Amino acid sequence: MPPVRESAKSPRANGPLYGHIADALAGQIERGVLGPGDRLPSVRQLSAQRRVSISTAMQAYGRLEDRGLVEARPKSGYYVRSRRLDRLPEPRASAPAVRAARIAVGEQRARVLEAGVRSDIVPFGIGSPSMELLPVEKLHRTLGAVIRRAGRSALDYDPPPGCLALRRQLARRAPDWGGALGPEDFFITNGAMDAISLSLRAVTRPGDTVALESPTYFGILQTVENLGLKALEIPTHPRDGLDLDALERALRRQRVAAVLTASSFNNPLGCCMPETHRERLVRTLAKREIPLIEDDIYGDLQHHVSAPRLRAAKAWDRDGLVLLCGSVSKTLAPGWRVGWLTPGRFSAEVRRLIIGSALATPTPLPLAVAEFLQNGGYDHHLRGLRATYARQVERTRQAIAECFPSDIKMTRPTGGFLLWIELPRGVDATELGARALEAGISIAPGPLFSARARHFSNFIRISCGHPWSPRLECGVALLGHLVKQMAK
Amino acid sequence: MPPVRESAKSPRANGPLYGHIADALAGQIERGVLGPGDRLPSVRQLSAQRRVSISTAMQAYGRLEDRGLVEARPKSGYYVRSRRLDRLPEPRASAPAVRAARIAVGEQRARVLEAGVRSDIVPFGIGSPSMELLPVEKLHRTLGAVIRRAGRSALDYDPPPGCLALRRQLARRAPDWGGALGPEDFFITNGAMDAISLSLRAVTRPGDTVALESPTYFGILQTVENLGLKALEIPTHPRDGLDLDALERALRRQRVAAVLTASSFNNPLGCCMPETHRERLVRTLAKREIPLIEDDIYGDLQHHVSAPRLRAAKAWDRDGLVLLCGSVSKTLAPGWRVGWLTPGRFSAEVRRLIIGSALATPTPLPLAVAEFLQNGGYDHHLRGLRATYARQVERTRQAIAECFPSDIKMTRPTGGFLLWIELPRGVDATELGARALEAGISIAPGPLFSARARHFSNFIRISCGHPWSPRLECGVALLGHLVKQMAK
Repeated sequence: MPPVRESAKSPRANGPLYGHIADALAGQIERGVLGPGDRLPSVRQLSAQRRVSISTAMQAYGRLEDRGLVEARPKSGYYVRSRRLDRLPEPRASAPAVRAARIAVGEQRARVLEAGVRSDIVPFGIGSPSMELLPVEKLHRTLGAVIRRAGRSALDYDPPPGCLALRRQLARRAPDWGGALGPEDFFITNGAMDAISLSLRAVTRPGDTVALESPTYFGILQTVENLGLKALEIPTHPRDGLDLDALERALRRQRVAAVLTASSFNNPLGCCMPETHRERLVRTLAKREIPLIEDDIYGDLQHHVSAPRLRAAKAWDRDGLVLLCGSVSKTLAPGWRVGWLTPGRFSAEVRRLIIGSALATPTPLPLAVAEFLQNGGYDHHLRGLRATYARQVERTRQAIAECFPSDIKMTRPTGGFLLWIELPRGVDATELGARALEAGISIAPGPLFSARARHFSNFIRISCGHPWSPRLECGVALLGHLVKQMAK
Repeated sequence: MPPVRESAKSPRANGPLYGHIADALAGQIERGVLGPGDRLPSVRQLSAQRRVSISTAMQAYGRLEDRGLVEARPKSGYYVRSRRLDRLPEPRASAPAVRAARIAVGEQRARVLEAGVRSDIVPFGIGSPSMELLPVEKLHRTLGAVIRRAGRSALDYDPPPGCLALRRQLARRAPDWGGALGPEDFFITNGAMDAISLSLRAVTRPGDTVALESPTYFGILQTVENLGLKALEIPTHPRDGLDLDALERALRRQRVAAVLTASSFNNPLGCCMPETHRERLVRTLAKREIPLIEDDIYGDLQHHVSAPRLRAAKAWDRDGLVLLCGSVSKTLAPGWRVGWLTPGRFSAEVRRLIIGSALATPTPLPLAVAEFLQNGGYDHHLRGLRATYARQVERTRQAIAECFPSDIKMTRPTGGFLLWIELPRGVDATELGARALEAGISIAPGPLFSARARHFSNFIRISCGHPWSPRLECGVALLGHLVKQMAK
């Protein structure tokens, strides 16, 4: 690369100096001298090469970033961005069937879960964070410390509502999402899925209809199926979530026993309902006395680190009709199965359901989570984790843009670590899942995310819960190859 | 007490010497010089007092023991037994209604559970062992060691069937109860109640009828109620358990979706089905293709330390129709909620149900239980625990015989730590429960143990899970006082 020193002599004549440097680099990118994913010289190197100040070099990269040509990766440097990524559209809002359906998706979900924890499989399938991102040592030390301190009581039953120490911490954090709750408003559960299952059982009876986002996480569909409920899938926008007009039309048309929504960063769409929508949803349902089950498991995982946490729909609940479900499975310890539920007016039902199922939650693990929330630096950990997830999602999106056919569509989530991808029409996602697994890669095929087996037949969910690595890069490349083969 | 040395001179003329000593002591007990619960001289003291050998003194106590006048308490000495105890009959076999009933017992169960873990309440209410009897330190050290060893994987999801290490240990121990199962035959669950709940959900649909023992543990009735099932209560004998003739008559009369039995030491009766009954039960149900849910949570807790463990009904299962449910809640760690289930032919259903509820079991706790079963001296612990429970049950029975009205009836369990007591006709157990709780004592009133609220209205369950102490002694005395007041 020839030095551009000459133009440094007349910066004002032809625009600022950093602009020239940026243009030169942009030219190299255009001509393919630098390809997507290539590393650019460090700021220090660029400053030496071009004989300009460090700040001019930084300004040059800033301009390239603004133009979407490069991206900064913290502690690593600047890299050429995929141009194709910018051209990829998001999928359209879903258009599910207007009738409620009994669910019939078989053993596939279990297979996705099992493949997800096999270390020999590239883990795009399971919606779970890599253990590398979690404070393993610290949590284990905390668990050791709390059981030593609690002694005998850590071995005894902790009947519902469960661990008071954790309920206190949750109440203390409720203002973060706009809540004003006390410890007595929470029940500790075996993870968020248990909380959702308890909520559904508390507010419905077999045969009832539940309105859901479309697509919806397959574990929730499994629960709905297990409970003999019908799923009414509501059109859902990949950015704003549940289509409230469509929901209201549906509610006028038929009796719905409950609405279930992941207000922040739904699995698999990653969509996030604006606060105005949340308020409207709560009001609409309150008028009809319909309970809202709010799955907030990804609620802490907004990518934008300095933005405040969105208020949960529960924040607008005046009638005890919103059942908020959360857990630490995406932020601290998936395997500990520590979650919670604010059952609102359904507290007696939830208590009865717990006594008639698990009877109590395990005593030591919620104790350790409470201690970590209080003294373990949870907020610091969370800030780092959010930035990491943001990076991993962006990295994966770029790789997919490069390796998949150009006519795919892909979500642009603003939180969480999941991507939802629409493949070319002819590509059967279930068949792709089978071929990928043979090649050592797990993905979650679209039909898992609908009550109707033929829905989303050309969609897949890709999890970005693992740090980007050559292994993942190869995985995306191989997946892209399989998709291209099948698209022919 | 005058020495009986003179008769020592002619032992053969009037029977053996130890017989004379025994007679003299028996006389003192008859005349009330020594009262129930009084401690007798130690063997060494007796030998010195009577100027006889240690072995003669021991023989004298042996004879008194044979006559039921005294009892040995390990490491403590000989005590005067309550004579009234021997005169107390067992309750008769239950005679429940012949029609299935929807269950309707309210918040009481939750209150019994809550009172059970309050340290300021005398704990006769909750069917849970005292933490003093459990290897707390050792379990906590084991948990600390396994999470250190497992590292990251102890924090990750462990999807169904759950912890392989524990399933291996369970398979290794299956021959103890006559089983020949592999690790693949087990699912790890959140305690035995979760296993029972999963079993019921796997083999029934809402509206179905389930045949149960009468009385039955209230947590199970709660599950049956929660699942919208009807309970068909079958007459049950306080010693032999389920009345199989009555069950067979019921099965001829109506459709039953499943039979649920605690074959060993049922809660609250403590009854134990003879092996011949177990075999007959399995055969009867196999002929009709009816699943048997076998609650084996007390199965390890036979009092007779040298007797072999009874074979579980599962041992006769040739058709995959027996779902065996167990846990370590009565032997190691109630608060850890570690249980298991062998679902037989219903494995796919159970997997789906777990994925749609708790999703997985917590990873660290089953790992620690597996380690304890393998290397923690579980068998040694269990032998001690069985002897302890036997002692506590006997001690409590004696105190009750002394303090309650003489026309009560009481079970004589051969395992576990629960007593079932029939109070005089007029005594309302629910009212007694309320008065007792006011006085700082928890008990479990009989109506909790039936689907019909008016059944067992003059029965109570007393738990002997805590080491005998002056506090418990006062508790029994106070309870007896309340019962006598109410019996007037």
